[in-house]
Amino acid sequence: MSGRTARRRVLRISLPGGAGEPARAAERADLLAAEEPLGIRVGGEALTLTMRTPGDDIDLAAGFLVSEGVVAEPADIAGIMICDGQRCGHAGHDGDSGMGNIADVTLRPGLAVAAGLRRSFMTTSACGVCGKTSIEELAVASRFDLAADQARVTPEVLAGLPDELRAAQRVFESTGGLHAAGLFTAAGQLLAVREDVGRHNAVDKIVGWALRSGRLPLSGCVLLVSGRASFELVQKAVLAGIPVLAAVSAPSSLAADLAQESGLTLVGFLRGGSMNVYTGQDRVLARADVSG
Amino acid sequence: MSGRTARRRVLRISLPGGAGEPARAAERADLLAAEEPLGIRVGGEALTLTMRTPGDDIDLAAGFLVSEGVVAEPADIAGIMICDGQRCGHAGHDGDSGMGNIADVTLRPGLAVAAGLRRSFMTTSACGVCGKTSIEELAVASRFDLAADQARVTPEVLAGLPDELRAAQRVFESTGGLHAAGLFTAAGQLLAVREDVGRHNAVDKIVGWALRSGRLPLSGCVLLVSGRASFELVQKAVLAGIPVLAAVSAPSSLAADLAQESGLTLVGFLRGGSMNVYTGQDRVLARADVSG
Repeated sequence: MSGRTARRRVLRISLPGGAGEPARAAERADLLAAEEPLGIRVGGEALTLTMRTPGDDIDLAAGFLVSEGVVAEPADIAGIMICDGQRCGHAGHDGDSGMGNIADVTLRPGLAVAAGLRRSFMTTSACGVCGKTSIEELAVASRFDLAADQARVTPEVLAGLPDELRAAQRVFESTGGLHAAGLFTAAGQLLAVREDVGRHNAVDKIVGWALRSGRLPLSGCVLLVSGRASFELVQKAVLAGIPVLAAVSAPSSLAADLAQESGLTLVGFLRGGSMNVYTGQDRVLARADVSG
Repeated sequence: MSGRTARRRVLRISLPGGAGEPARAAERADLLAAEEPLGIRVGGEALTLTMRTPGDDIDLAAGFLVSEGVVAEPADIAGIMICDGQRCGHAGHDGDSGMGNIADVTLRPGLAVAAGLRRSFMTTSACGVCGKTSIEELAVASRFDLAADQARVTPEVLAGLPDELRAAQRVFESTGGLHAAGLFTAAGQLLAVREDVGRHNAVDKIVGWALRSGRLPLSGCVLLVSGRASFELVQKAVLAGIPVLAAVSAPSSLAADLAQESGLTLVGFLRGGSMNVYTGQDRVLARADVSG
């Protein structure tokens, strides 16, 4: 079974404070975050490959398909099997496969990956996006309307989320090597946390869990990511119907642009009791004291 | 012209120390790291797409082709033009295109992207890698033999690199939103630094610059990355002939495995005067004092 961590020998070197003293070095065992490829197939045909931390692979595949606009409700997926090249099987109750690195998705009858999407993956989007830079051209259309989401969140609740996320990151604690995504209510209650070597995978695992438990769209929720906010992460939040995306670090320009277009509230640099709200500022209840 | 940063309005909120006091909020301008798609074409055919920070696009395309084992010396590339969908042109002296989001690469006569590689991109590697987890099956073969690289580096030099990299990160300073990669000699002299919203792009920009200036293989060099070390980054270092890869944060299991297989020295958690050496420990001159 593929674990989420892997043990390796390491030479730990520390430099002493005093000049001229030799460095101290000691061999010890160290836990690393596991990284392995997961191939996602739909209807027997390869769709994409991601380097991920094993675990929650069923959710990862399901969430990826939500993020690409292929599915939006539990019934859209007839089944997901985890295969190792020879054998396939259903995952355990926690979504862990323990079996292999292929997720084989069967969509409900009548639903298929759009030829355009499959082609865009087949050519890694290079043709479809070449020369396109506008949000309208790049973004995947969402079935959910974020602009209608009446969620409101206070700065106090937002400021407390990073500590809650960190406390819930079990694998990060042992490896220091994983991104995390946490889903919260607008009141700050933690609904789910997922960790992965790839930040996009951590979000897909959250979204896939939400799809499979019938929670989409994730109206009224806040998604917190441990790192930066890219275009891709904003797109995943929008496609899952999440009205507020908060990041501990900086957003990119295209992330802010897509958030603006989509009616998403984008919060960045959420740390140490302060934050930047880039878009959708009406959802953050701090307007009474606006100055400047 | 596409800039490396973009200005956006932001609501900055700070929570006061005292309980019950209202949050302070003020509108101000903020600089974000620019993120835009770059399509890479070879011989007129789409090969891949990456979300990157504009700038050094020619180097990015060249470095990507090194990382995939397509090219290894300057003469392998007959030319790279930057296009916007209608027009194409040569980049400025600093590699900035300012023209568009397509890099159109012409290889030297007789050289082509292997059908297998093109197919693996066309299917996003999902078939080729499905069910494969061994390093031998995943990794791209390198033309350079790292095991023969006699480079040696001291812990003192390594410990000083993160500060040097940070000092050289001009865009990060204004946006807080960019990964960086820095190339150093084993004596700690900075040779090049590149920044990007994607850490893999920052490394490709370094490698492409090195290819185009006739510096491959980068024997005796140390590559420092500002974040974590994934399988992909180790592969890029190996294909560029770099014997030492150091990361400020954690490596993944597959990164350590590929480094071991390839004879690469992999250093992680390089911060605050200490570091973990995962593989290739003979290159780090701290063995005299090994204990434990």
